[in-house]
Amino acid sequence: DFAKIDHHRHLRTGFPEVIWGPGKTPEQIIQIMNTMARHSPVVMATRIEAAIAEQLEAEIPSLIYYPTARICALQSGQTSFQASGVISILTAGTADLPVAEEAAITAQLCGFQTQKLWDVGVAGIHRLLSHRDLLAQADVIIVVAGMEGALPSVVAGMVDCPVIGVPTSVGYGTSFGGVAPLLTMLNSCATGIGVVNIDNGFGAAILAGQILRT
Amino acid sequence: DFAKIDHHRHLRTGFPEVIWGPGKTPEQIIQIMNTMARHSPVVMATRIEAAIAEQLEAEIPSLIYYPTARICALQSGQTSFQASGVISILTAGTADLPVAEEAAITAQLCGFQTQKLWDVGVAGIHRLLSHRDLLAQADVIIVVAGMEGALPSVVAGMVDCPVIGVPTSVGYGTSFGGVAPLLTMLNSCATGIGVVNIDNGFGAAILAGQILRT
Amino acid sequence: DFAKIDHHRHLRTGFPEVIWGPGKTPEQIIQIMNTMARHSPVVMATRIEAAIAEQLEAEIPSLIYYPTARICALQSGQTSFQASGVISILTAGTADLPVAEEAAITAQLCGFQTQKLWDVGVAGIHRLLSHRDLLAQADVIIVVAGMEGALPSVVAGMVDCPVIGVPTSVGYGTSFGGVAPLLTMLNSCATGIGVVNIDNGFGAAILAGQILRT
Amino acid sequence: DFAKIDHHRHLRTGFPEVIWGPGKTPEQIIQIMNTMARHSPVVMATRIEAAIAEQLEAEIPSLIYYPTARICALQSGQTSFQASGVISILTAGTADLPVAEEAAITAQLCGFQTQKLWDVGVAGIHRLLSHRDLLAQADVIIVVAGMEGALPSVVAGMVDCPVIGVPTSVGYGTSFGGVAPLLTMLNSCATGIGVVNIDNGFGAAILAGQILRT
Amino acid sequence: DFAKIDHHRHLRTGFPEVIWGPGKTPEQIIQIMNTMARHSPVVMATRIEAAIAEQLEAEIPSLIYYPTARICALQSGQTSFQASGVISILTAGTADLPVAEEAAITAQLCGFQTQKLWDVGVAGIHRLLSHRDLLAQADVIIVVAGMEGALPSVVAGMVDCPVIGVPTSVGYGTSFGGVAPLLTMLNSCATGIGVVNIDNGFGAAILAGQILRT
Amino acid sequence: DFAKIDHHRHLRTGFPEVIWGPGKTPEQIIQIMNTMARHSPVVMATRIEAAIAEQLEAEIPSLIYYPTARICALQSGQTSFQASGVISILTAGTADLPVAEEAAITAQLCGFQTQKLWDVGVAGIHRLLSHRDLLAQADVIIVVAGMEGALPSVVAGMVDCPVIGVPTSVGYGTSFGGVAPLLTMLNSCATGIGVVNIDNGFGAAILAGQILRT
Amino acid sequence: DFAKIDHHRHLRTGFPEVIWGPGKTPEQIIQIMNTMARHSPVVMATRIEAAIAEQLEAEIPSLIYYPTARICALQSGQTSFQASGVISILTAGTADLPVAEEAAITAQLCGFQTQKLWDVGVAGIHRLLSHRDLLAQADVIIVVAGMEGALPSVVAGMVDCPVIGVPTSVGYGTSFGGVAPLLTMLNSCATGIGVVNIDNGFGAAILAGQILRT
Amino acid sequence: DFAKIDHHRHLRTGFPEVIWGPGKTPEQIIQIMNTMARHSPVVMATRIEAAIAEQLEAEIPSLIYYPTARICALQSGQTSFQASGVISILTAGTADLPVAEEAAITAQLCGFQTQKLWDVGVAGIHRLLSHRDLLAQADVIIVVAGMEGALPSVVAGMVDCPVIGVPTSVGYGTSFGGVAPLLTMLNSCATGIGVVNIDNGFGAAILAGQILRT
Ligand SMILES: Nc1ncnc2c1ncn2[C@@H]1O[C@H](COP(=O)(O)O)[C@@H](O)[C@H]1O
Ligand SMILES: Nc1ncnc2c1ncn2[C@@H]1O[C@H](COP(=O)(O)O)[C@@H](O)[C@H]1O
Ligand SMILES: Nc1ncnc2c1ncn2[C@@H]1O[C@H](COP(=O)(O)O)[C@@H](O)[C@H]1O
Ligand SMILES: Nc1ncnc2c1ncn2[C@@H]1O[C@H](COP(=O)(O)O)[C@@H](O)[C@H]1O
Ligand SMILES: [Mg+2]
Ligand SMILES: [Mg+2]
Ligand SMILES: [Mg+2]
Ligand SMILES: [Mg+2]
Ligand SMILES: [Mg+2]
Ligand SMILES: [Mg+2]
Ligand SMILES: [Mg+2]
Ligand SMILES: [Mg+2]
Repeated sequence: DFAKIDHHRHLRTGFPEVIWGPGKTPEQIIQIMNTMARHSPVVMATRIEAAIAEQLEAEIPSLIYYPTARICALQSGQTSFQASGVISILTAGTADLPVAEEAAITAQLCGFQTQKLWDVGVAGIHRLLSHRDLLAQADVIIVVAGMEGALPSVVAGMVDCPVIGVPTSVGYGTSFGGVAPLLTMLNSCATGIGVVNIDNGFGAAILAGQILRT
Repeated sequence: DFAKIDHHRHLRTGFPEVIWGPGKTPEQIIQIMNTMARHSPVVMATRIEAAIAEQLEAEIPSLIYYPTARICALQSGQTSFQASGVISILTAGTADLPVAEEAAITAQLCGFQTQKLWDVGVAGIHRLLSHRDLLAQADVIIVVAGMEGALPSVVAGMVDCPVIGVPTSVGYGTSFGGVAPLLTMLNSCATGIGVVNIDNGFGAAILAGQILRT
Repeated sequence: DFAKIDHHRHLRTGFPEVIWGPGKTPEQIIQIMNTMARHSPVVMATRIEAAIAEQLEAEIPSLIYYPTARICALQSGQTSFQASGVISILTAGTADLPVAEEAAITAQLCGFQTQKLWDVGVAGIHRLLSHRDLLAQADVIIVVAGMEGALPSVVAGMVDCPVIGVPTSVGYGTSFGGVAPLLTMLNSCATGIGVVNIDNGFGAAILAGQILRT
Repeated sequence: DFAKIDHHRHLRTGFPEVIWGPGKTPEQIIQIMNTMARHSPVVMATRIEAAIAEQLEAEIPSLIYYPTARICALQSGQTSFQASGVISILTAGTADLPVAEEAAITAQLCGFQTQKLWDVGVAGIHRLLSHRDLLAQADVIIVVAGMEGALPSVVAGMVDCPVIGVPTSVGYGTSFGGVAPLLTMLNSCATGIGVVNIDNGFGAAILAGQILRT
Repeated sequence: DFAKIDHHRHLRTGFPEVIWGPGKTPEQIIQIMNTMARHSPVVMATRIEAAIAEQLEAEIPSLIYYPTARICALQSGQTSFQASGVISILTAGTADLPVAEEAAITAQLCGFQTQKLWDVGVAGIHRLLSHRDLLAQADVIIVVAGMEGALPSVVAGMVDCPVIGVPTSVGYGTSFGGVAPLLTMLNSCATGIGVVNIDNGFGAAILAGQILRT
Repeated sequence: DFAKIDHHRHLRTGFPEVIWGPGKTPEQIIQIMNTMARHSPVVMATRIEAAIAEQLEAEIPSLIYYPTARICALQSGQTSFQASGVISILTAGTADLPVAEEAAITAQLCGFQTQKLWDVGVAGIHRLLSHRDLLAQADVIIVVAGMEGALPSVVAGMVDCPVIGVPTSVGYGTSFGGVAPLLTMLNSCATGIGVVNIDNGFGAAILAGQILRT
Repeated sequence: DFAKIDHHRHLRTGFPEVIWGPGKTPEQIIQIMNTMARHSPVVMATRIEAAIAEQLEAEIPSLIYYPTARICALQSGQTSFQASGVISILTAGTADLPVAEEAAITAQLCGFQTQKLWDVGVAGIHRLLSHRDLLAQADVIIVVAGMEGALPSVVAGMVDCPVIGVPTSVGYGTSFGGVAPLLTMLNSCATGIGVVNIDNGFGAAILAGQILRT
Repeated sequence: DFAKIDHHRHLRTGFPEVIWGPGKTPEQIIQIMNTMARHSPVVMATRIEAAIAEQLEAEIPSLIYYPTARICALQSGQTSFQASGVISILTAGTADLPVAEEAAITAQLCGFQTQKLWDVGVAGIHRLLSHRDLLAQADVIIVVAGMEGALPSVVAGMVDCPVIGVPTSVGYGTSFGGVAPLLTMLNSCATGIGVVNIDNGFGAAILAGQILRT
C-alpha cells in the first residue's frame, strides 16, 4: 500500500525497479524485496548502511550485501540482461570508491561486464596517459570524480565513445558537497559527456547499460 | 596563434573540432574556419547571432547559416561520419526550439539521421502518450525542456534506450536561467538519463551520436 | 510569558493555532498544550520526534502521538470544523510518507475527509494514469514529491481542481534538501498549483481545508 | 508543427491553453492565436511587450492589448467560465501593478469577478487594517508583493479564506530578482498560503479561479 | 600566545572584548577569561554549550552561566557602562528565545536596561498592535525573528526609533538556516532597520548599546 | 488609486514617505509628488535616472535633481527634522560615490548635518589612520564599500559610536553584485555594525538620522 | 577629493596604485591619471572600454590604449620595477584572450617579461603535453581558463613552480559567469595553485610579479 | 590497487604526494603510508581525526601525530626540500588555529622555516600595526582568517611580498562555512593575494614553499 511496485518496468525499460533505501523503514524494504522477488530474478536496494543491512539479512537469509557499494541484492539464478561490450569505470581518487563500486555492482547485477581503473586523477596525468590503450578500446566509460572533477574532461578528449560523468561529494569547503565537480562536468570543453546526479553511481550504471544495448 | 586547432580530434573522437562563437571576433572565426576547411569535410561554428553570420557570409560565400539553430557551416561534399539508427529529438514547448534545432543541425552535419517531436510537454500528457510507438522504437532520445523540465523523467520511464536531458533557459523567475530544469533532470526518479549543460543542444547531439556509434 | 497563544485565531481563520515543536523545550510544549486545551477542542503540535513525544505522554496521558506524521494531539470530542468534499493526498514515492501523513493527520484533526494515493511518481506514469477517475472527481489535491518533484505538473495538467504542491527533502546531491522539487513545482508548465515550503505537509493541509470551505 | 495546441485542455481543466509569449516569434504567436480562435471563445497571450503587440494588432485587428498587464486577447462573445464569488487582489506597492494587472486581466478574461486594493504594504500597516471588512468577506485573495514580501503573512493571519502569494521582482540588491519575497512567502508563520512563481500573476489568477469553482 | 587580548578595546569602543566560544578549547577559554578578569570588571564568553560551561565552572567558581542565552560571565561588582534609556527586545516566536536572551544578557552585562516582549509575530498582528504604547516610547528596538522574519518591517513602520533586525535560524526547508528572514530584513519596505548576522543576539545588543549612548 | 500615500508616516516615524522611483511611470511619480507636496515640506524620489529626471523637471519646475545621488526633491522652506550631531559618511573607493551621495543628500534633505570622507579603503590603511581624530569624534558613521567591503570592520574596531555598513555593487566576478561586501559586513569580527541592503544609501541615512535623534 | 591617490603604495608594495575604470566618469579618470603621472613613471587604468578610451585619448594625447586588454597607460620612460625570470601565461581557449592580455600588459607595464601560450585547453591534452619543456622551465605560470577551468589542475600537476589560476566568465548556463572554473581551481587535486577573482588578469599579473621578486 | 601512488610527483613538483585522509579507511591509509615510506623520506596524511590517528599509531609505531593540525607523519631523517627565506603565518583569531597549524606543520615537514603571528584580526588593527617590521621583512605570508576574512586585504596593502589567503569555516550564519571570507579574499581591493580553498592550510603551505623556491 505504501509502495506501488513497478513490476512492469522491466518490460518497458529492460531494467527492474530498484529500491532506494533512504527514508524507508527496514520493514518496508523487506516487504518490498519479498514482493519483488516473486517477479524478478534480481532484486536490488541501494544506499543501505551496514547496520540496516544486518537487519535485512536477519530476515532474508539469501540476501547479499556489498559493503563498499552499500547495495543489498537477491539474485535467483543468472540475470537475463546482457549486451556485448564492457563498461569501463574510472575514479580520480581512492575516496571515490564507494560511488564507483555502486556503479560496478549495479552494472554486474544487471548483467553487464565491467572493467575498473582506480585513482587516475589529473594531478598526475601520466597515470591516465599510461592507460591510453584501455581507453581507446572502451565502449562506454563511467568517470567518477570528486574535488574539482576534471577527469571526465580529459578522458572525453581522448576517446570516441560516450562518457558518463559522476561527480562525487568527496572534497571540502568550496566543493559544496559535490557541486564543484558537477559544474566542471556540465561545463566541459570536451564533448560527449552525459552527467548524472552527485554520487549517483547507480544511475550511471543503468545509463551505461542502456548505451551498451543500443 | 590565438587558436591551436585540434585537427587531430577527428581521429581521436570521430568528431571534428567545432568552433564556439562567443568571445571570438568575426576575423578570428573566419580565419579558423578557413584553416579547418583545409582538413575537414565539415566545419561548424555554433552560437553565431544573425548579425555576425552576415559578416561571415560576406567573407566566406559558401557558408550556410541556420538561423534558428544559430549555426554556421561549411560542407564540402557529404560528411563521412555515420551510424545506423536515428536520434529522436523532443521538446516540451515551442520556446525550446532554438536549442532543439542546435541539436538537430549538429547531428545532421555530423552524419546522423534525426526525428523531431516538438511541444509535447507534460502539462498535456496525452500529447506525449499519443506518440508511444515512436518512443518505443527510438535508439537514443534527446529531450529538450525548460521551465520545470519534467519531460525527460516521464520519457525515461517509458523507454528502454538512453535519454539525454537538455535543460533550457526558457522560463522566468525561479527557473534561474535553466537551473530549475537542470536540477529536475539530475534528480530524476527515472533512470537512464544523462544531462548536459543548460541550452547545450550541440553537446547533446555529439553525445547522442557517440551513443549511436557504440 | 514565553508564548502569547493566539486563542483568537480560531475565530479569525477557522483553524486553531498549532504548536511548532522545534526549538521548544518539552516543558514549554506541555504548558502551551495545557493552556490551549482550555480553549480549543483540538490541540496539535507538529514536528515532535518520538523521544520528545514520550516525555509529553508521561505528563499528558490523554495525548495521542502519530509517529509517521510526528504529530501530537489532544482531542476533546469531535472537532467542529468541517466541509463537504475530500482532500486527496498523493505521493511520488514511499519515502515521502512522513510529509504526506503530516498533511493527512492535520487535515483529519481539523475535521476534513482525506483520501490517499501513495507511490505514483512519474517514473512509471501508468501508476498515475490508472487512477484517472479518482483524479477527475477530486475537490482539491495535495501532491507530495521529492527528488525531481515532477508529479504535481502531470497531475495539474489532468484535473480541474486546485493542486497544492509539497516538495520534500527526499533525495540527495543536487536535490539540495528539497530545493530541486520546489523549483520544479514553482516553474510548472501546468497551471493551478500553489506551492508550500519544503516538507510542509501541515501547511498544505490547512490550505486545502481553507479551499474546501470556500 | 512547432506547437501542439492543447485544445483539449479546456475540457480537462476548465481553462483554455494560454500562449506564453517569450521565445516565440510574432509569426508563431499569430498562427497559434488564429488556430486557437477557431476552438475557443477566449484566446490569450501573456508577456507581450508593446512593440510585439503592435505587430500582432497589425495582423489581427480584433486583438485587444492590455499594456500594464502585457496581455493580448481575442474574445468572441462572453466567456462561459464562471463562478460566484470574487477574487480579491492586493498589492504591497505601486511597482507591483504589472503583475497584479496580469492576474486581474487573466481572471476577468476567464470569467471571474475581481476586486482590487493597491499599495497596502506593511510599512504602513494602518492602510491594510482600514480594509479589515473587505478582507473578512473575501473568498480568495491574491497578494502581490516585492521587496521583502511580508504582506501575505499579515493578510493570511487575518482571514479565513485561501491566500495566494505572488512574489515580484520589484526591489534591488538582496531581493535577488524576487527571491527574497518568495522565501518570505514560503516560510510564512501564518498558514493558508499557496505560492506561485516570481511575477506569475497569470498562474495566481488560474489557481484563484480553480479555488472559486471548488 | 594563541590569543592577543584586546584590553584596549574598552577604551576605544566603550565595550570589553568578548570571547567567542566556538573553536576554542575549554583550557583556552579559561586562560583568556582569567587574563581578562585582571583588566575588566565584566568578562563574557558567548556560544558556550551547557557541557562546556560545566567544565568552566569547575575551574572558575565565580562564573555565572545563563543557559538559554548560552553566555558565561565573570562580574566583579557593577559594570560601569551605562546610558539612560531602555533597549526593547521583541521576538516573533517562542523558538527565537535563545537569540533574544543572548541579546538581553549581553545588554545587561554591559550595563543597559532591557524590556522584553516575546512571541508577537505577524501571524496574529493584534498581539503586536496591543503593545502600541510600549513601541511608541521605545528608544531602540531589537527585533528577533526566524521563519519569514516579517516582524521588523511591521515594527519599523510604527515607530520613530532605530530598529535592529536579528534574523534567526528558526525554521526549516527554504528558511535555509536563517537566510529567508535575513533577506526579508535587508529588503524591508520600512526604513530605519539595521541588520546583523543570523542568530547574532550578541552583536545586536552591542549595537543597541552604542545607539543608546549616542 | 495606484498609490496610498502614507501622509501619516511623518507623524509616526519622524520621516516623510519617500518615493522609490523604479517601476513607476513618470506620470505616476509626478502625480504622487504633487499630492505629497500639499502635506510635506520635503518631497523626495530616489533612483531617478537622468532621462526620467528631465521629464519630471519639465512638469515640476521647482524640482531639484542631484545627479550623482539620483535623487529628485521638492523643498518648500527649511525642513523641520533636526538633531544635534553629525552623520559621517565614508567610502572605500571612488566608484562608491553614487551610493554615498544618495546617503548624504537624503540626510541633508531630512535635516541632518553630514561630513564626508571619500576613498579611504583598506588597501592603503594609512589613509584611514590619518583621520583617526575625525573618527574618534563621530556620532554615527555610514561606511559605504564595495569589492570586499572590509572598511566597516576596521572602522568599527576604532570607534565607540554606531556604524552603518552599506555594501555596494561595485566590483565584478565573485562580488556577485554586492553579495561579497554584504557578507563581509554581516560577519564582521568587530561589533557595533548594522547593515542595510546593497546600494541602499537612502536607508542608511534614515537609520543614521533615527540614531542621532535617540 | 573624490579620490585619495595612494602615492605611497609604490614604496610599500613595489607596485603603483592602478586605476579601476568601472564606475568612474571619464573626467575623474583623466584627473586621477594626470595627478598620478606627476609621481609615477607608469600610470595604468584597467577595464576601459573602447568608447571611454577614445575620450581619454582626446584629453591625454600620450595615452596608449591596449584594446584586447582594455588597459590605458601613460609611460614616461622605462619602468623601474624588474626581476629576472619570466611570467608564463597560458589560456585554455581563444575566448580567454582579453583576460590573458590584461595579465600580460599589466606585467609588461610593471617591468616583467612574459611568455604566452594560447588555446591549450584539456579537451586536446596533447596540445599541452607538446609544451612540456616550456612548462618545466617556467618560473611562475598564470593559467587563464573559463568553462570548466580544468587546465590549472593539469598544469600544476606537471610543474614545480607556483601556478596562478584565473577563472574567466567564458561559458554559458552552469558556468554561472565564471563560478564553475573558480570552484574547479579552488578544489584542485593538484597543489600549488593560488586563485584570483573571475576575469582578474590584472591581479594575477601583480601576484606573479611579487612572486618573481621573492 | 585502490590507490596509484604518484611516487614520481616528488621529481616533477618537488613535493611528495600527500595522503588526504577523509573517505579512506584506516587500513587503506596504513597500506598507502607503508608503501610511500619505501620511496620518500617524509610521508604525510592530513585531516586525520584523533580517533583514527590512534588506530594508525597502533599499527605504525614511528608515526607522529600533530593534534591541532590533524596531521600524521612518518619522517626518516631530515627532509631534503629546502629554501632560504621564511613562511610567515598569521591568523585573525584563535579559532583559526587548526588551519594555521595545518599550514605550519606541512611547511615544516616539507623543509621550510615558519614564523607565526596569531590573533591579529582587524577588529583591533593596532595588534597588526604593532608588527609592521615583521611584515616588512616577510618573504611570503599566509593569512588565515574566518568570519569576514578582512585580514589579507589589510596585510597585502602593507607589504611587497606575495600573500596567500586561506579562508576558514570559523563563523556562523552568513559565513556559510567559509564562503564569506573566501569572497572577501577574492574581491580584495589590495593586490598580490592568491586564494586557496576554505580551511586549506595544507595547500597554502605547498604554494608558499613553491614561491620561496622561485
Ligand atoms: N541510488 C539511487 N539513486 C537514484 N535513484 C535510485 C537509486 N536507487 C534506486 N533508485 C530509483 O528510485 C526509484 C525508487 O524510489 P522509491 O519508490 O522511493 O523506492 C526507482 O525508480 C529507482 O530506479
Ligand atoms: N510544521 C509546521 N510548519 C510550519 N508552520 C507550523 C508548523 N506547525 C505549526 N506551525 C505554525 O507555527 C506557528 C507557531 O509558532 P510558535 O509560536 O513558535 O509556536 C503557528 O502559527 C502555526 O500555525
Ligand atoms: N556571539 C558572537 N557573535 C559574533 N561575534 C562575537 C560573538 N561573541 C564574541 N564575538 C566577537 O568575536 C571576537 C573574538 O574572537 P576571538 O579572538 O576568536 O575570541 C571579539 O571581537 C568579539 O567581539
Ligand atoms: N582590474 C582590476 N581588478 C581588481 N582590482 C583592480 C583592478 N584595477 C585596479 N584595481 C585595484 O583597485 C583599486 C583602485 O580602486 P579605486 O580607488 O576605486 O580606483 C586599486 O587598489 C587597484 O590596485
Ligand atoms: Mg590518489
Ligand atoms: Mg505548448
Ligand atoms: Mg516507488
Ligand atoms: Mg507606496
Ligand atoms: Mg507563537
Ligand atoms: Mg582609490
Ligand atoms: Mg580552441
Ligand atoms: Mg581574539
